[in-house]
Amino acid sequence: MKILITGGGGMLGQKLIAGLAKVGSLNGKKIESITVVDAYKQSQALDGFDFKITSKIVDITDRKECDAMIAEKPDVIFHLAAIVSGEAESDFEKGYRVNVDGMRNLFDAIRLHSDQYCPRVVFTSSVAVYGGPYLDVADDNFILQPTTSYGVQKAIGELLLNDYSRRGFLDGVGLRIPTLCVRPGLPNSAASGVFSNIIREPLMGIEATLTAGKDASMIFTSPRSAVGFLIHAAQIDTALLGARRSLMMPGIYATLGDEIDALRRVAGDKIVGFIKEEIDPFVQEMLTSWNFPRFEAKRARSLGFTCEDSFDELIKTHIADELGGQIPGLTK
Amino acid sequence: MKILITGGGGMLGQKLIAGLAKVGSLNGKKIESITVVDAYKQSQALDGFDFKITSKIVDITDRKECDAMIAEKPDVIFHLAAIVSGEAESDFEKGYRVNVDGMRNLFDAIRLHSDQYCPRVVFTSSVAVYGGPYLDVADDNFILQPTTSYGVQKAIGELLLNDYSRRGFLDGVGLRIPTLCVRPGLPNSAASGVFSNIIREPLMGIEATLTAGKDASMIFTSPRSAVGFLIHAAQIDTALLGARRSLMMPGIYATLGDEIDALRRVAGDKIVGFIKEEIDPFVQEMLTSWNFPRFEAKRARSLGFTCEDSFDELIKTHIADELGGQIPGLTK
Repeated sequence: MKILITGGGGMLGQKLIAGLAKVGSLNGKKIESITVVDAYKQSQALDGFDFKITSKIVDITDRKECDAMIAEKPDVIFHLAAIVSGEAESDFEKGYRVNVDGMRNLFDAIRLHSDQYCPRVVFTSSVAVYGGPYLDVADDNFILQPTTSYGVQKAIGELLLNDYSRRGFLDGVGLRIPTLCVRPGLPNSAASGVFSNIIREPLMGIEATLTAGKDASMIFTSPRSAVGFLIHAAQIDTALLGARRSLMMPGIYATLGDEIDALRRVAGDKIVGFIKEEIDPFVQEMLTSWNFPRFEAKRARSLGFTCEDSFDELIKTHIADELGGQIPGLTK
Repeated sequence: MKILITGGGGMLGQKLIAGLAKVGSLNGKKIESITVVDAYKQSQALDGFDFKITSKIVDITDRKECDAMIAEKPDVIFHLAAIVSGEAESDFEKGYRVNVDGMRNLFDAIRLHSDQYCPRVVFTSSVAVYGGPYLDVADDNFILQPTTSYGVQKAIGELLLNDYSRRGFLDGVGLRIPTLCVRPGLPNSAASGVFSNIIREPLMGIEATLTAGKDASMIFTSPRSAVGFLIHAAQIDTALLGARRSLMMPGIYATLGDEIDALRRVAGDKIVGFIKEEIDPFVQEMLTSWNFPRFEAKRARSLGFTCEDSFDELIKTHIADELGGQIPGLTK
């Protein structure tokens, strides 16, 4: 079993490698090698696994580089490579070049490899494929009408995944992954950064800025659950998906205000005191344009995808996975 | 007022020119010139109008040719150019090259022309953007999950239209046009041809083949109504559309069986006798994959888009517009 991870140099890719090391096999087939490619970052900490890991710098906007990756015939491809929402909004052409044309390069390399080759492709779509006006509760039949360029590019990716799968070129599963929270490490340029910042920094005893109004809402899942989604998607019976290869993943609905309430329950008033309010009009506008409703992820749940039960649990997952079970901010 | 029509050499484009000649102006601005471009067909019968008509062979898959078209700064662009459903299914690469990359060429030519230029772009999408499994009645919030390559390409076109409009590069209106019926002239390679064939040929006293089962269903509108949609779309206040630039158009739901019943009511048993049943597995499979439900086109109706009330009326429109009010088959 050979695995390829595109965009694997990022946080989720690195956690996915660790998750794959833990399971050791997919559908009973032992993982023998993982190739991790990224446009920018070499993977870190690749020692100590039971399988061979190769890390490469690859630009998926170059079709020849995609052909070279696919020449190795990976059995499972996790396609995580993408320009994130903030950058796709500020650099229109780069977003389309990577998120749409890069994906087509990868898919066409697979399509034209040989008739017999049909790898499982797990594609990280996003809740950003949705856009208002919403119903009170959105379900699996709700229209995809994104209100950001990033969301449009991910929705196009989903459509391509359906068509290439229907044609038998690849065996795709798309995951509309809720906003990751609490996102560890440093902020990236995603406009959704505020949702993590106001939890992560206060827990460390560092001031964080609430850059949008408290009623801004979103759907969340933990990095741990997201890795679980990816590994589960690599193993499910895709015959159960029919023509619709992408699934809204389970997540926790919360407003920024709900997040602060949960933080108070889990970590107390002192930690909440590290949050300062200062509205950023750009962030406020993007969050208002999303303003995500509650979502019933019935299809995904029926296929065995699971996540935490509450925002409190998301914070506890972060404390367990990233902070060694401690809250450093309490002693500052 | 300068108008550009892409893919204007086809049946709908030619009827659109006649329709524009009839109205003479759009939103009170006199039509001064129409440029009709097509990859294959020169326009016919372009004399006798009050405005200048220029017909050109243009390949929209060539970005330079798109730049040249846009250099003339048309005020309204009707983007009809497309590879139809049957051909997009049989020639995978050509469908994407024209229906996706060609559209992006056109849109990018507009985007990069100048900051001040923002033409109205009326895009012919299609009911093929939908796919089952359906609800009993689909509405404007129903998910776009096409089950053909043509449908995927049109859905991608809609997403691009939203994003380019939101960014202020163009002022788009997308129309999910029901299957045209009765389509005049010779069959094209659309798999949906049977829906027209079994009406058009019998009315002429010519045998027609029912190539799919009678329960295959679809949503229809007449070419006359479709031209009405296009001309209305060129004039509506797009502020009313919000972020969702494409609209499901009103149409008549009918099965092949309903069509035959309507034909019997309008033209009698003798005409229905010209229909012979012989299932074509390829057509049967495509029609089954669509199997369109009833559809509430509330948004479009609220914005003033209208069509016929029944399939009987669609047949009467055809007899009036194409057969001079007569049914030639009755005297054969």
